[in-house]
Amino acid sequence: MVYLTRVEHFNAAHKLYNPRWSKEENEAVFGLCANENWHGHNYDLYVTVKGEVNEDTGFLMDVKVLSGLVKTYVLDVVDHRNLNLDVPFLAGKMCSTENLAKGIWEQLEPHIPAGVRLHAIKLYETPRIYVEYFGA
Amino acid sequence: MVYLTRVEHFNAAHKLYNPRWSKEENEAVFGLCANENWHGHNYDLYVTVKGEVNEDTGFLMDVKVLSGLVKTYVLDVVDHRNLNLDVPFLAGKMCSTENLAKGIWEQLEPHIPAGVRLHAIKLYETPRIYVEYFGA
Amino acid sequence: MVYLTRVEHFNAAHKLYNPRWSKEENEAVFGLCANENWHGHNYDLYVTVKGEVNEDTGFLMDVKVLSGLVKTYVLDVVDHRNLNLDVPFLAGKMCSTENLAKGIWEQLEPHIPAGVRLHAIKLYETPRIYVEYFGA
Amino acid sequence: MVYLTRVEHFNAAHKLYNPRWSKEENEAVFGLCANENWHGHNYDLYVTVKGEVNEDTGFLMDVKVLSGLVKTYVLDVVDHRNLNLDVPFLAGKMCSTENLAKGIWEQLEPHIPAGVRLHAIKLYETPRIYVEYFGA
Amino acid sequence: MVYLTRVEHFNAAHKLYNPRWSKEENEAVFGLCANENWHGHNYDLYVTVKGEVNEDTGFLMDVKVLSGLVKTYVLDVVDHRNLNLDVPFLAGKMCSTENLAKGIWEQLEPHIPAGVRLHAIKLYETPRIYVEYFGA
Amino acid sequence: MVYLTRVEHFNAAHKLYNPRWSKEENEAVFGLCANENWHGHNYDLYVTVKGEVNEDTGFLMDVKVLSGLVKTYVLDVVDHRNLNLDVPFLAGKMCSTENLAKGIWEQLEPHIPAGVRLHAIKLYETPRIYVEYFGA
Repeated sequence: MVYLTRVEHFNAAHKLYNPRWSKEENEAVFGLCANENWHGHNYDLYVTVKGEVNEDTGFLMDVKVLSGLVKTYVLDVVDHRNLNLDVPFLAGKMCSTENLAKGIWEQLEPHIPAGVRLHAIKLYETPRIYVEYFGA
Repeated sequence: MVYLTRVEHFNAAHKLYNPRWSKEENEAVFGLCANENWHGHNYDLYVTVKGEVNEDTGFLMDVKVLSGLVKTYVLDVVDHRNLNLDVPFLAGKMCSTENLAKGIWEQLEPHIPAGVRLHAIKLYETPRIYVEYFGA
Repeated sequence: MVYLTRVEHFNAAHKLYNPRWSKEENEAVFGLCANENWHGHNYDLYVTVKGEVNEDTGFLMDVKVLSGLVKTYVLDVVDHRNLNLDVPFLAGKMCSTENLAKGIWEQLEPHIPAGVRLHAIKLYETPRIYVEYFGA
Repeated sequence: MVYLTRVEHFNAAHKLYNPRWSKEENEAVFGLCANENWHGHNYDLYVTVKGEVNEDTGFLMDVKVLSGLVKTYVLDVVDHRNLNLDVPFLAGKMCSTENLAKGIWEQLEPHIPAGVRLHAIKLYETPRIYVEYFGA
Repeated sequence: MVYLTRVEHFNAAHKLYNPRWSKEENEAVFGLCANENWHGHNYDLYVTVKGEVNEDTGFLMDVKVLSGLVKTYVLDVVDHRNLNLDVPFLAGKMCSTENLAKGIWEQLEPHIPAGVRLHAIKLYETPRIYVEYFGA
Repeated sequence: MVYLTRVEHFNAAHKLYNPRWSKEENEAVFGLCANENWHGHNYDLYVTVKGEVNEDTGFLMDVKVLSGLVKTYVLDVVDHRNLNLDVPFLAGKMCSTENLAKGIWEQLEPHIPAGVRLHAIKLYETPRIYVEYFGA
């Protein structure tokens, strides 16, 4: 078994704000991240799939196909968007890196081709903070 | 003469939107960057000063002092903010990387200590796009 | 379960020198790293914790809290220090990256909050050498 | 148990071309990568070994020894070479990153010293594509 | 005046080989880089333009337009190619990073829009070697 | 004219300590950097030369020759050393990044071959602090 990773990039606005809490509670917990006028990030997204190598191509899967799936099911939904307002798969959830990584897994996993399995989503919010998710 | 650079980091929301234009004109020129609900970036900021080395310290200037000036006059104003809504020095200007770099120069330049001169502001909007400004 | 990583930075002096060996034996095994006058590194430290996401915050744990624990129990002890002379948790041990990574785990692990577990310490000594430790 | 990783670098030419297929089939599957005149890459190679720490040295193994093994059994064979034409361990195989990573494992694994085990080969073809292999 | 830089990426095969010299002379001067079967690189290309900021857009020039020019006049010509065999603007020249940087300048410069000037081409051959060219 | 840069790496111990001042004065000015037991860094060194391209080689100068000069006149003197105790060209000077960059220029400049000129020394002390020197 081999593991193949494709790195993609998107940027988006968000805020950390729990609508069931008061403004003061949000600021106490989330600090500057609760700024009501939003802030944003350049996200680096690592998508890892695993499986056996095809003898004819030498590929686990064509990395251009994987990149196309990430574009269709993730980047077209989140890139240059507001994660709190514009992204259906985050509706009703806190827009944390943790939930974003899990949501990206759920978006992508059903579309990974037969014979290959999604292994990991790794998502950098800043160069110093990242989250990994390996499925439920 | 030597040149000393300090690298800092902030993140912010913005959009590229000219209020004197229609929504259609904005989308034609700025594409996804005109998304009315904002998007955002992790900005990397390089501040370069120049001058002579002090013999007693070996320093052009204490890099902790430079870092403190950047924090007070720039980061405290833009970090975790909305560049269009929250930043006084960008009021009435397009929130492009070009104008942000020029605005940061104007914020910092009056506070650089005597004997040292501000040389350059270099601002990365993404790892693949940056602007440099060397003063008027 | 999700995994959250915080990246921190410190720099320190050290040497690789086994006091039970002669100077010649140390130089034969450790080469330049045995220089009696020390050398040093910028260390990059990746601390990974794992657990379930809190629904109210969207967080596994607040990354600022994690960063604060790393500062208190690791950085305040090793940053701008001499690993051989100044760091209690390395006393009597060889100051290798391996032992430093294990020592950092032991410093941090008792302070990770309930419901979250320390998963990994990854420590870069140079951009081309790193050690990972996942606990005993 | 600790894990130690050494990062090395090489560059090489290759093409993705299945000699049992027509030129048209190759271009349909591999696109620009099938260019008959070759293209090439700077490869970053991460070699990870695992085992127990030696008390006298503080080392899992001497990283200079590991680096020497990688030079002898991998870099001297692939660096500044044509992967399709010059590399015996890839003869008769597709020159994909997947097969290159597996081949590097097979080159190195027999030479890892007693008491230490090869854990992973991670190979970047570009900064946005990498493959990992953990053995059969 | 501001300076705007766009970073692009391509990969290519090449060799350093002077056809007016013997094989022995080429190997003496160019070493492994003269391997007759080619080697290759991931090149990072920094294109810098300079000029005044447009008040309506906040742009020196639209970075997507700049990126499109680089794609049309450079990347489509060199990416996934053999620099010695496939690239008209290098015909009859040594395929060094120096000549490649100068050739890229000459390809791009006539197409930079009025009011903006090409300032620099910076070309990384490896992460440790780069060339800059600022025009004749 | 073209500019060619080679990136090298070394690591060293140092402290910022003015022997003409009291311990208290040193700590007030230099803080943790004055730790009497030293600290250290991984330094990244960028050496830039400039001149005309040789038609026969395509080179400004052979980058392996440049790398060899840096090794002989700089790395062999500073790598795995104590900058305060072991480095003749820093004797009697404060061991700041500024003075280290100037000293490296003075070490290298007399050995640059005829027809090529040393243009810049750029020295990173940490990923967030660097100094540039372009000669007297």
